[in-house]
Amino acid sequence: MSEIRTYGPELDAYLRDLFKAVGIGRAQGASVARNMTWSELVGRKNFGVIRIPVHVKRIEHGVLNAIPKPKFSQTAVGTGILDGDNGFGYFTGELAMERAVKLAAEAGIGMVAVNNSNFFGTGAYFADLAARKGMLSLVMSNSFPKVVAHGGLKSVLGTNPFAFGAPRAEGNNLLVDFATSSLAGSTVRQYLDQGKQLPEGLAIGPDGEPETDPEKIGKASLMPFGGAKGYGLSLMVEILSGILSGAGFSNSVNSTYSNFKEKSNSGHCMIAIDIEKFMPLEEYYGRFESLVGILKLSNPENEVLLPGEVRWKSYEYNSEHGITIPEKIIADLTAISDKYKIECPWLVAG
Amino acid sequence: MSEIRTYGPELDAYLRDLFKAVGIGRAQGASVARNMTWSELVGRKNFGVIRIPVHVKRIEHGVLNAIPKPKFSQTAVGTGILDGDNGFGYFTGELAMERAVKLAAEAGIGMVAVNNSNFFGTGAYFADLAARKGMLSLVMSNSFPKVVAHGGLKSVLGTNPFAFGAPRAEGNNLLVDFATSSLAGSTVRQYLDQGKQLPEGLAIGPDGEPETDPEKIGKASLMPFGGAKGYGLSLMVEILSGILSGAGFSNSVNSTYSNFKEKSNSGHCMIAIDIEKFMPLEEYYGRFESLVGILKLSNPENEVLLPGEVRWKSYEYNSEHGITIPEKIIADLTAISDKYKIECPWLVAG
Repeated sequence: MSEIRTYGPELDAYLRDLFKAVGIGRAQGASVARNMTWSELVGRKNFGVIRIPVHVKRIEHGVLNAIPKPKFSQTAVGTGILDGDNGFGYFTGELAMERAVKLAAEAGIGMVAVNNSNFFGTGAYFADLAARKGMLSLVMSNSFPKVVAHGGLKSVLGTNPFAFGAPRAEGNNLLVDFATSSLAGSTVRQYLDQGKQLPEGLAIGPDGEPETDPEKIGKASLMPFGGAKGYGLSLMVEILSGILSGAGFSNSVNSTYSNFKEKSNSGHCMIAIDIEKFMPLEEYYGRFESLVGILKLSNPENEVLLPGEVRWKSYEYNSEHGITIPEKIIADLTAISDKYKIECPWLVAG
Repeated sequence: MSEIRTYGPELDAYLRDLFKAVGIGRAQGASVARNMTWSELVGRKNFGVIRIPVHVKRIEHGVLNAIPKPKFSQTAVGTGILDGDNGFGYFTGELAMERAVKLAAEAGIGMVAVNNSNFFGTGAYFADLAARKGMLSLVMSNSFPKVVAHGGLKSVLGTNPFAFGAPRAEGNNLLVDFATSSLAGSTVRQYLDQGKQLPEGLAIGPDGEPETDPEKIGKASLMPFGGAKGYGLSLMVEILSGILSGAGFSNSVNSTYSNFKEKSNSGHCMIAIDIEKFMPLEEYYGRFESLVGILKLSNPENEVLLPGEVRWKSYEYNSEHGITIPEKIIADLTAISDKYKIECPWLVAG
C-alpha cells in the first residue's frame, strides 16, 4: 500500500458520511467536509484530512461539540459576536465570515468576533469565501500557547494565523495567509515526522538556548516571525480574536493535541470590506490587475507570484488528477472508518 | 554648536509659527506641528522635524498643498472616503482617523480610505489617537516604490507601513508600528548619513545581487521583511490604501524626496473598532492587563516589553528633559527660519 488518489467530490461525500456516523450534525459536518476538501485541493494538506483523527478523538472525549448551536448577536450595524458553542472552528469560522459579509453589505465594513471555538484550519479558506462575494477580508485566530513574546522565554502566544483576501476579476483570488510565528505548528509536525533538524533561530528551549531538535520541540517554544514585527502582529491577533471576542487568550486556550479534558476555547476575528462602497467593482478589478501586471513584469527571468497563486495551481491540478493521500493517513482514516462502519472511497488490495 | 534641547510646547509653538510663515493654513499647520512634536517626544525622530526641509521644498515647488480643503464622503454607515486635496498626510491622516472613530461609534467598526495625500509620518500616532478614544485601530499607508515583490527584481511596492493600536487602562497604549519592508526608508537614510554598510539580505541591486553599500541604495531595492509574509502584508497595505482609496499605487505614487514636479498621490487606510460594541471597556481592560501580566512574567531575567513601551519611556523622559535636536537639523531649521523671518526657540552662540 502506498499513497492513494481520490477526487474532490468523492472525498467530500465520504467525509460527510464519516462525520455523520461519528455523530456530527449535518450542517457542521458539511462545512468541515467542504473546508477539508478545499484544503486538500489547494495543497494545504496540513489542514486537510490529516486532522481528522484528533478531531474525532476530541468528540469522543466530549471536548468538541458534535452538534453545536452557534449563537450570533449583532451588536451594531457593522459588528457582531458569534458564540461558537464549542463547535468546529471550520464551521463557526464559515458562519462568522458569512455574517461579516452581510454586515459589510450594509455598513460598508463588517466584523464578527467568535468565541467558544476550536482550530479553524486555514484562514485563506474564509478569505476566499469573502472574495467570492466581491469583498476584501481580514481573518485571524488565536491558538494555544506555543510562541514566546519578543524577549520572552515561555510560550505565551499561539501561532496566531493571519490572512487577507482580495478578489480578482477572473477568480483565483489573492490569498495572503501565514502564521505569525517563525513556523506554523503544522510545519513543526512535518519536521518531527521526518526526523529532520529545525533551522536555527526558529525555536528556543526553556533555558533561552536555540533548539533545533524536533524531538525536543514539545518543551521548546517557537519565536515570532521577523522579531518584534511578528510579535506585534501576533498580539494584534490575540487581542482581536481572543481578548475582544470573549474567548480564551494566552494560557486559557487549551491544546487541541494534548488536552482532552477541556474545550479549546479559542477565538477568531473576521472582517469583511465591501469594495463597492468605495468604487465600482469593475474599476477595482481594473486597478488591481494593473498592479498585478506591474508585479509580473518586475522580474524578466522568473515568474513573480501573487500570494495564493501556488494554491490555485494545485487546485487545478488536483481537481483534474485527484488528491494524493499518503499511506499513513490512509491507514488512520481506514481505521476510524472501520470503527464507525463507513466504507472508504479507496480500494486497498490487502 | 552641538545638539540642542527644546521642550515639547516650545517646539510645537515654533513649528506653528514657522508653518504659518511658510503659508501653511492654520488647521493643517497645527496638525503637522502636533504630530511632529509627538514623534520627537516618543523618540521617533525620523518622523519629526528632520522632515521639515523636504516638505517646505515641496510647498515651494507647488507639489504639496499648503492650504488644502480635504473632502469627506460617507459611503455607508461604517465607511467613507477622504480626498486629501494633496495636503500633508499628517493632517489628512488625523482627519481620517477622527472620522473612522466617529463611524465606529455608530457602526461598531469604521473605515476611511484616503486618496490624494502625502507622507503621513508614523502610523502609531493615528493608532494612539484612536486608542485615546477607547478604540482599537489599524493604520496603513502606501508610498513610492522602493521594495521588490517576493521573487521580483524591480521596486514595485512602497515601504508600506502598518500600525495597530490598543488602549490600555492606564494610558501608554499598545502601539505596533512597522514598515513591511526589511528596513524603513528612514533607516536607510540613517545608514547613508553615517556611511555604514547595510547588513546583507535587506537590499538587492537591479541585477538581483545583494547590495550593502548605502551609496548605491538609490538604485537598489529593499526586500519585503520576512520574505513572502512581508510581501503579503505589503500587498494588503497597497490594496487597502492605494487601490481601494482611489489614490496612486505602485509606480503612480511619486517620491517625496526626488520628484518635485508631481504631487505624491499616496493613500492611507484607517480602521477603528469600538471596543464597547463587544464588551464593556472595563472588562476589556481587565482581560488585556491579564494578558500583559502573562507576557511580563514570561522572562524572569529580562523585561518583556509591549510594542510601544519604549516610546512611552522616551515620551516621559523627553517631556521632562527636553527633545534633543542634532546640529545638522538645527542648521537646516535655522536656515529655513531665517528665510521666512521666524525666530527659532534655541539660542545659538555664533
